[in-house]
Amino acid sequence: MFYKTSLLLAALLCSSVSSAMEPFQPLPAEPPIPRDNPQSVAKIALGKQLFFDTRLSITGTHACNHCHTVAGSGSDGRALPVGVYGRKGQRSTLTLWNAAYHTVYNWDGAMPTLEAQFKNHLLDPNVMGMPDGESVKARIAAIGGYQKQFTEIFSDGVSFENIAKAVSSYLRTLSTPNSPFDRFLRGEKTAISAAAKRGYKAFIEVECAACHFWVNLAGPTPGLALQQGEGFYELFPNHEGSDYESRYRLADDQGRYHLTLSAGDRRLWRVPSLRNIALTAPYFHNGAVKRLDEAVRVMAKTQLKKELSEQQVTDIVAFLNTLTGEFPKQDLPRLPGLLNRTAVAGHDE
Amino acid sequence: MFYKTSLLLAALLCSSVSSAMEPFQPLPAEPPIPRDNPQSVAKIALGKQLFFDTRLSITGTHACNHCHTVAGSGSDGRALPVGVYGRKGQRSTLTLWNAAYHTVYNWDGAMPTLEAQFKNHLLDPNVMGMPDGESVKARIAAIGGYQKQFTEIFSDGVSFENIAKAVSSYLRTLSTPNSPFDRFLRGEKTAISAAAKRGYKAFIEVECAACHFWVNLAGPTPGLALQQGEGFYELFPNHEGSDYESRYRLADDQGRYHLTLSAGDRRLWRVPSLRNIALTAPYFHNGAVKRLDEAVRVMAKTQLKKELSEQQVTDIVAFLNTLTGEFPKQDLPRLPGLLNRTAVAGHDE
Repeated sequence: MFYKTSLLLAALLCSSVSSAMEPFQPLPAEPPIPRDNPQSVAKIALGKQLFFDTRLSITGTHACNHCHTVAGSGSDGRALPVGVYGRKGQRSTLTLWNAAYHTVYNWDGAMPTLEAQFKNHLLDPNVMGMPDGESVKARIAAIGGYQKQFTEIFSDGVSFENIAKAVSSYLRTLSTPNSPFDRFLRGEKTAISAAAKRGYKAFIEVECAACHFWVNLAGPTPGLALQQGEGFYELFPNHEGSDYESRYRLADDQGRYHLTLSAGDRRLWRVPSLRNIALTAPYFHNGAVKRLDEAVRVMAKTQLKKELSEQQVTDIVAFLNTLTGEFPKQDLPRLPGLLNRTAVAGHDE
Repeated sequence: MFYKTSLLLAALLCSSVSSAMEPFQPLPAEPPIPRDNPQSVAKIALGKQLFFDTRLSITGTHACNHCHTVAGSGSDGRALPVGVYGRKGQRSTLTLWNAAYHTVYNWDGAMPTLEAQFKNHLLDPNVMGMPDGESVKARIAAIGGYQKQFTEIFSDGVSFENIAKAVSSYLRTLSTPNSPFDRFLRGEKTAISAAAKRGYKAFIEVECAACHFWVNLAGPTPGLALQQGEGFYELFPNHEGSDYESRYRLADDQGRYHLTLSAGDRRLWRVPSLRNIALTAPYFHNGAVKRLDEAVRVMAKTQLKKELSEQQVTDIVAFLNTLTGEFPKQDLPRLPGLLNRTAVAGHDE
């Protein structure tokens, strides 16, 4: 499902709506938590261990953290990711910071929840390459320390489903609050520079905000207009045939169409978040644009058919740099050992 | 340089030597620190950041931590490692825990210091794949946060040499003290089980201890008989032609010979540490043996021409499991961002 943004934005900007319907919102203290996977300290700690554990990949070479670097941007800094056996992904790695505020996952919105996204990555031959959920369960169940933790946390012990739940609980703790823009929105007028303020104004006037609004600057969050599993999609490129389109091969991948095979879904993409965008170069689904200033030019032209002045570009980049939040301090977990034998025998040569 | 272990062991076991010359020693509080790279809090923190930073690999896919998992065993749990571009290494990954107590590095002792080993890994096409030290420097110098830290810590700022120094300083903090065996050596008689005590006795009687002695159960540490850069090597297989040799292809790789091309170095290998050996399966330079009990059988046969009873194997494994130390709590560092552009442009598709 997708919304014509002009309608939605009109509703959001309508003067009659309450302040809770302002187009931008500071990151809330807590993301939405699904009813069937409540947070707990023990579950979050377990999920963090699994997130750093290479034994979740068929070859033992890849942990979630290898592409989604928690020490950094939550992405891999590459155009296209590299999974097990040196296999390349076809779309760039999205950051996991603030992922809990999305309604769907993947560039094409194929996955309705973090849990589903995790399971999909585990079984994707180009990512973690596990053959099936049972194999994932067997890997983890063989490790005594994990076995014990799962039994304490889940009534049904180790399962692929519970592994996904634990990791997703950890991911729901990965928010970056208190960006300069958040502080500005809460009334701290000097939190952002004069250039960033001009950029903020331009961002709205040029109509970047037609899609990049609300908590994650990525459209509706769960509970606002959309429910979890319902996506907010836009055409990209919206205006076809620009020089940028051919230079960066922006239309080679038809987005959601490859998922649904429905003609109406050609070039439809989930609107990505702009939080921490200064840290997540390169840009776009194919990672073809290596600089943020160029990404701003591309978006203005392909989406809004506008040529920006260099001043506008500089100002908008200054604004986008105020979206970098505070990254919570992370302890590195200790991973339980599989004693005296290998976990990945047969996949390690 | 290598020592005939029988002579060295005789000297160590000689009744006239002081207690400081006992064949086994608890891990000291501090490892040897080279004069030209003194430890400092700021340098260790910088080294830890670099250790977790994928931008040190040509493709941006690999951090040191990906194979040398600090959250785990300090190794990769695989027979053979996988570096950039999916390229395989030819020898198994050695753990970095307690690496500071070695006199040389690599299975063949090719590298005299941690600093040299780090630089070698950075430029190895099968590991991090950087073309030269200047490229490494350029990657790091482009990142403002790093630039500032290096300038504060080193009088000559960012350099390949200083990057190696910082990472090595961090590595020198990675010790695992207070293993049950260490506590036993310090007089805590109940720190190890009855089976482990039998195993300890067998370990000496069978003569495993002829090579696996002293602080790291890997022969001399710097300052004891050997200086930093001087290796302690043994033949492996020592007794040729066993079934194990063909089954696990133990003699396909001729060890130090490939480095020196000197006939006397055929099948010579650095004696590896046994600390945390329960966590570092699979075993041997080619990772061909997947279980510790089998590794014990292989060693007895190929090195000492002895067939162990199953009771001896079980007991020695129980002893080896007392060598797992305490892993110090680690904070995950925050990595400075390269703002608004990619660090690995041209190597990321």
